[in-house]
Amino acid sequence: MDHGKNDMEILEATDDAYGGVIVDVRKKMDPPTFVAVLRASISRWRQQGKRGVWLKLPIELSSVVDSAVKEGFWYHHAEATYLMMVYWIPETTPHTFPPNASHRVGVGAFVINQKGQILVVQENGGMFAGTGIWKMPTGVVEQGEDICAAAVREVQEETGIDTKFVELLTFRQSHKSFFGKSDLFFVCMLRPLSFTIKKQDCEIKEAQWMGMEEYASQPFVQEREIFNSVAKICLARKENAYSGFSALLNTSGFSNKKCYLYCSSTYTPS
Amino acid sequence: MDHGKNDMEILEATDDAYGGVIVDVRKKMDPPTFVAVLRASISRWRQQGKRGVWLKLPIELSSVVDSAVKEGFWYHHAEATYLMMVYWIPETTPHTFPPNASHRVGVGAFVINQKGQILVVQENGGMFAGTGIWKMPTGVVEQGEDICAAAVREVQEETGIDTKFVELLTFRQSHKSFFGKSDLFFVCMLRPLSFTIKKQDCEIKEAQWMGMEEYASQPFVQEREIFNSVAKICLARKENAYSGFSALLNTSGFSNKKCYLYCSSTYTPS
Repeated sequence: MDHGKNDMEILEATDDAYGGVIVDVRKKMDPPTFVAVLRASISRWRQQGKRGVWLKLPIELSSVVDSAVKEGFWYHHAEATYLMMVYWIPETTPHTFPPNASHRVGVGAFVINQKGQILVVQENGGMFAGTGIWKMPTGVVEQGEDICAAAVREVQEETGIDTKFVELLTFRQSHKSFFGKSDLFFVCMLRPLSFTIKKQDCEIKEAQWMGMEEYASQPFVQEREIFNSVAKICLARKENAYSGFSALLNTSGFSNKKCYLYCSSTYTPS
Repeated sequence: MDHGKNDMEILEATDDAYGGVIVDVRKKMDPPTFVAVLRASISRWRQQGKRGVWLKLPIELSSVVDSAVKEGFWYHHAEATYLMMVYWIPETTPHTFPPNASHRVGVGAFVINQKGQILVVQENGGMFAGTGIWKMPTGVVEQGEDICAAAVREVQEETGIDTKFVELLTFRQSHKSFFGKSDLFFVCMLRPLSFTIKKQDCEIKEAQWMGMEEYASQPFVQEREIFNSVAKICLARKENAYSGFSALLNTSGFSNKKCYLYCSSTYTPS
């Protein structure tokens, strides 16, 4: 290019809602070129009164990460395919970047049939492997997945049983569970729609229907307060002496997207 | 060092619970040295039958990120001060790395006094700025923070009012809210312990006590399904026609750490 200094190439940016810019870098650049373009861009954004800079670098551009750090950027978050870096232009005010995702979300499934039996599994791997403990199917809620749908999916994957979400019974929040992240774990009651178990061979050693009282009387459950508390809640629900939260389909405030609102199952919205 | 090839320096690693290793790199190395040490380490771990490799690189070592990518590592997650990269040693089985934190967690505070008035604010920034809308105090739950504590903290910060957590009334889950992450938002009912408002000047334009019915009748609340649904739940709770979840202090299953279990406030654990 035959540009003078004032015509220096600038990174393509879109404005965010908070006076900042978002840059989704796609073009491969060698580090010296990247530094020159980045400096010219920041200078331009400073003149424009911009504040925060979001710099999304696909993993293919890992060769310029070090240059961005040396220019004053730091890490905000990363996914498998990209690294999000940030830079704060104002020199006299502290940055207002929102925090990164802070929680992992898991589900446990309380699947109870009309005989009062619940669906339990033994896992091949993880902390329960080789313990002989019968546990409820559990799993991780994926990004973009509804809690009520995740419980149904996990039961299908682990045991082949089709189910329908009934109620969210209880949940717990714990901390420092995974590289410092916090953790939310939701126990969902599901009604089985099929009964013949076809277990997944990779993760699941055994799967069966088991009397609820037999499940709750396992020493492992009895001796650990949270497992015991959850088992008692499930038993109370079985006896219709407990009510949890239903999932009501609702519309999000700004975007008009559909979302689930979880609220007391004894409440009837007017 | 005068080491032969077999005595090549190996990265210090600790075992994880799933047959892998975790490497917390602290020592500064130039990229060629890093590559040599990394290759020797992977070769050793392969001989040992290790599977996943977690490589935690502090931001001060950004100069070796590109080398790690070229050796086959990819990004798992990042925080301001470090980048976590991963590598899967087995050639014939797919990786089993757990997903990154998937959810951001927010709270809204329904603070109601004995006159039936609720605490509302107008914000200086964000989506509500300049709209004249009175809203409940809201905020982000920090990593490591309990939901019930976050609601109390946000109210204190925004309005100077001291409160006590009473109940979790409802929550919603939405998706693609922040760089593709999902979002959980918990509405907590709090009892005020003080009444004189001292608002925070930076974020909050106005704060006041307002009749619950006046809050709920704002066109903004009426016209948006989720705000309307939440307002109706709060009104029902005010009339004692609704019950949410209490927060019970419990003990986590494996680590014996204390954690909160949220369950129906009408349930009395035996």
